[in-house]
Amino acid sequence: MIRFRPIGIVHSPFKTRDDIDPRRNRRPRGFADVRGEIEIDPAYAPGLKDIAGLSHLIIIFVFHKAGPGHLFARPPFERRRRGVFSTRSPRRPNPIGMTVVRLHGRRGNILKVSGIDMLEGTPVLDIKPYTSRDRKRGVQRGWMQRSVLNR
Amino acid sequence: MIRFRPIGIVHSPFKTRDDIDPRRNRRPRGFADVRGEIEIDPAYAPGLKDIAGLSHLIIIFVFHKAGPGHLFARPPFERRRRGVFSTRSPRRPNPIGMTVVRLHGRRGNILKVSGIDMLEGTPVLDIKPYTSRDRKRGVQRGWMQRSVLNR
Repeated sequence: MIRFRPIGIVHSPFKTRDDIDPRRNRRPRGFADVRGEIEIDPAYAPGLKDIAGLSHLIIIFVFHKAGPGHLFARPPFERRRRGVFSTRSPRRPNPIGMTVVRLHGRRGNILKVSGIDMLEGTPVLDIKPYTSRDRKRGVQRGWMQRSVLNR
Repeated sequence: MIRFRPIGIVHSPFKTRDDIDPRRNRRPRGFADVRGEIEIDPAYAPGLKDIAGLSHLIIIFVFHKAGPGHLFARPPFERRRRGVFSTRSPRRPNPIGMTVVRLHGRRGNILKVSGIDMLEGTPVLDIKPYTSRDRKRGVQRGWMQRSVLNR
């Protein structure tokens, strides 16, 4: 077993799982416009030095409301179960999430961001700069190619 | 504290930290051509269903040889210390890594991939499909803009 201590939390307009469930709240333009904040524990705030010039950040977080993990997931609007590692379902063996957000500014230990698709209070494990190496070409999305989500 | 159990390990041509250190082994074309395998614990292998059609996978892993975490890092070929959250240094408060690899095929519980920049034996925590939402435009890389790395 490997243990991690959260470095901060997400502040999000999504307060409950229903708020973020695409079956209840379709978001045709996705989450790009969703604003929020990442509040870093003051003990870790010195590590935010130099972050202001970056446009995009990788946020690694915990799906803290996901419930037990499974090896299969039925994505929204899909009839078939898919192997969980070919989905972004939060109910996975290790409930770790990864979202790339846009950074709008920093005020002390608070990062102002958009692209939030996490719940209020989500524990943050790590923040990394998004670089050219993370931007891949020729992406084939397998079963998702025909899904209404993840376009 | 949050606990995770690895779901598998990375098989890599890089056996030691020196092998992968850009100060000892410059890789002008990066890691895109570096082949390796991801071996999933057979208990989790059913979760690999449907993965074959995906071209790129997000691998979340543990920097298991990184040593203690710090709030600042001096990136290779740089004179100045940077806030660790604006770097991809393995020596971070939670030693979690994220790399996007290309998937070449699956044989049972083994994924054949390229783009490996991890060490042999790296514990894998999660595998996710890379989607259009992970491919960002207009990326500004702050201090890295002038770095010889991360182009």
